[in-house]
Formats: sequence, structure tokens, C-alpha cells
Amino acid sequence: MMNGKKNWYIVDGYRPPLQSGGDSCYEGHESFMVLNCNEVEAHVLIDVYFEDRDPVVGIPVTIPAKRIKAFRSDDVDILNGLKLAVGQQYSIVFRSDVEIVVQYGRCDVAQANLAYMALMGYSE
Amino acid sequence: MMNGKKNWYIVDGYRPPLQSGGDSCYEGHESFMVLNCNEVEAHVLIDVYFEDRDPVVGIPVTIPAKRIKAFRSDDVDILNGLKLAVGQQYSIVFRSDVEIVVQYGRCDVAQANLAYMALMGYSE
Amino acid sequence: MMNGKKNWYIVDGYRPPLQSGGDSCYEGHESFMVLNCNEVEAHVLIDVYFEDRDPVVGIPVTIPAKRIKAFRSDDVDILNGLKLAVGQQYSIVFRSDVEIVVQYGRCDVAQANLAYMALMGYSE
Amino acid sequence: MMNGKKNWYIVDGYRPPLQSGGDSCYEGHESFMVLNCNEVEAHVLIDVYFEDRDPVVGIPVTIPAKRIKAFRSDDVDILNGLKLAVGQQYSIVFRSDVEIVVQYGRCDVAQANLAYMALMGYSE
Repeated sequence: MMNGKKNWYIVDGYRPPLQSGGDSCYEGHESFMVLNCNEVEAHVLIDVYFEDRDPVVGIPVTIPAKRIKAFRSDDVDILNGLKLAVGQQYSIVFRSDVEIVVQYGRCDVAQANLAYMALMGYSE
Repeated sequence: MMNGKKNWYIVDGYRPPLQSGGDSCYEGHESFMVLNCNEVEAHVLIDVYFEDRDPVVGIPVTIPAKRIKAFRSDDVDILNGLKLAVGQQYSIVFRSDVEIVVQYGRCDVAQANLAYMALMGYSE
Repeated sequence: MMNGKKNWYIVDGYRPPLQSGGDSCYEGHESFMVLNCNEVEAHVLIDVYFEDRDPVVGIPVTIPAKRIKAFRSDDVDILNGLKLAVGQQYSIVFRSDVEIVVQYGRCDVAQANLAYMALMGYSE
Repeated sequence: MMNGKKNWYIVDGYRPPLQSGGDSCYEGHESFMVLNCNEVEAHVLIDVYFEDRDPVVGIPVTIPAKRIKAFRSDDVDILNGLKLAVGQQYSIVFRSDVEIVVQYGRCDVAQANLAYMALMGYSE
């Protein structure tokens, strides 16, 4: 049992609108969920890539031992001040010193009823 | 042909609300589907991880030979008494003694029309 | 370039209702899409697994060279007479003599607006 | 860290209708997102497969170093003049000279509220 891989890639990062045209009980958002099954902290460096400018690299995030860490793409504290705008296309890479597992989710309430997308990152 | 892998990870476990605001023919739920193609039973240990407390580890589940087992995340009998609340973020790991394949699905009826997410677990 | 893998697994097979409560332009269905990039035909054997009875194994399907084959789960001709009922939980395995790639999709119109799920099979 | 794989497969390519029956803020579309984490350009050849005719092979696309490239399936300039019709079933293969990561998304507004599907390509 390896507890995952060290490097994870999500290509289609895109913050949906916050507000719905309907009566959604959800706010539009996208989330990253990171699972650390190890007995030690995971020290992760996050890189964010864009279509038309240089990537922002090496944003440090720590995942406690034997815990999940979930955060949204509008969390500027986690992202060390990097502000991702609604409608901005970006990709995100997680580089960890120990094995982790990374899943992505998006909840879009741009119309009266929500739509989901969810996937495991590509790992290596 | 190997019939899958022994270890499977779903990171984004989250029970959606049971009831819809609309006239859904579905109840909100999330499901785990496990396929055992082997000639022998699969003896699986399930671990559940959280954001802010120690994991619950080693919940035993048996999958008959040449069968599927599907269960929902609110099935406290399968989960050996572990009650996962609606809206609780968790991750789930399957550790089997033989090769299996694990898929996850969520059906959210929080709004008048349902939304799905579905993915294969990460395996190793 | 290998053109895929020989064995593919979809765990959560489930035919949704055909008819919508609303005005859907779609009929509820699930589909299997198989890509054969090879210069030769792919000879595939399909196995279908259930929760409570023995699997149906060895249903033969041929994918022409350099073509896609797409079929729905209610296609009894492709499935050699096997009738999968709406609401029946099943898993499906593709065993090919050459490398292929298999993707799954479900389109659910049980409510007035459709929901999708889509994923690559697990391969080995 | 390898930065992905060289060959990527999406089996279920299908352009949804552009227009919604409702008031969608989105136009129906499908997108391919390609991430190139390398210090050098990625030279990609795209092959498109069909159910009933020979594939179109070797469409050249360049992804700049350290950038994402996102394009829709109705972009005939990217696809070198190949026009994929709404409702046409196709598969798409990316063959690159360096490692990349490829994700697929479809946004369907055929009904009043959108549905998403999203997945990583199969890679090797």
C-alpha cells in the first residue's frame, strides 16, 4: 500500500459564478480535496498554470498526518495571496514530499439547478 | 487479467441532503460499488478519514465471489455502526486481500433537478 | 504508443428511466464507447456481473479496425439476447485480444432536466 | 516528476446543441484542455476517429512551454479545417513529443438547465 502518488494534475480549473439565477442552497464553487494517509505531514507545493502568462509556482500547503484537507479555489489564504478570478481558466499541480491522493469537484449554479463535475487528478 | 487492484481511494466523500426541493423520483445519496471478479470472496477493510479527527480504520466488508456489492454511505450496518452525517466531509479507503474495482457515485437532489457525479476510485 | 489496454471494467452499470417528467429532447440511456486504433479488428468478450446471481460471460463483440463502436445498454442484439432491465444494478467487463479504450456515459432524464455521468473505465 | 504522458485518448466526443430551451448563460460546447508543464513547446498531433469512416490523422497543434491550451471542438482553425457536426460521435487522440496532461469537458444546455461531464483522458 503506497497511499497514492506524489504529483497530481488538474487541467481544467475554472471558478464558476457564485450566485445562482434560481434558489440554490449551494454557492457556486470548486474544491480540491487532498487525502494524506501517512503517519507524517505532507508538505505540498502548488503550481498554477495559465493560458497567457507564466505560472505561479511553489505555493506551500501542509496536510496533517492521517487527515483530509479540503479547500476552495477562492481561498486566497491557502493560495498564498493568489486570487483566481471567476471565469479564469487555469491548471493546478500538486507536488508532495509523500504520497497523497487528490480529487477535484466543481459545483455550478449558473442556472436554476446545479451541475456537478468531479474527477480524480492525473497522478504520477 | 488481474481483475483490478487491492487498494482504492475515494477522497471526496460527502452525503448530500436526502430530500429535494422539487418532485424528485430519487432520494439524495452516495453509493460505493465494488466488483469482485475473482473465484473467491474478497475480504475488504474500509478506513474512513476526516478533516479534524483520527480516522476510523479496519471496518470489515465481504464481497462474494463473482458478484457486485453496492452500498450507500448512510448504511450503518455495512459501516459497522459508523454514522456519516449529511454534509460531513470524509475520505474512504478500501483495502482488499484480492483484486477488486471500486466506483463512486453521488446523486444530489438539493435543488429541483438532480445532479450526478461519478468516478473510479484511485487505485494501487 | 500502445492504443489502450486489453481489459476494461465499468462497475456502476444502471439503466435510467427512458422517459422524462419534463420536455427532454433526450431519452434516458447509458452508452459504452469503444475505440479501436489498431490496424486490425478487436475481438472483445463482454462479461456482465450482478449482485445476486452468476455473471453472464463471453458475449462476443467485434470492433472494426480504426473505428469507434458505440452501443447502449438496452441493445439486446449487441448483448446477445441479454436484457438489462431499467433499475438493475450490474457491472460490465470488456476483454479484448488487442488494445482498446472504453468510456462510459449515462444520461438521466428522470427529472425535468437531465444529469450526466461519464468516466473512463478502469483498465489493465 | 514526468509532467504527464505523451499519448491521450478521449473516446466519447460529441458536440451538444449550441442553444438551450431555457435561459442558459452558457452555450452548449465541449472543450479540450491541454497542460504543458515543460520548459519546451509541445508538438501534438491530433487524430479523430469515427464510427463509419476512416480517421482523420495528424492534425498539428502546438502548446507553448509552461502554458495551458484550451479549445472547443467546433474550432475549425485548431482542427485544420475538420468540421465536427453537432451530434456526430467521434473519438480524439493526442500524440505529443513531450509529456502533457489532457482533460475533457462537455456542457450540455439542451434542456433548461445545464449538465456537465468531465474526465481525464486515458493516457499511456
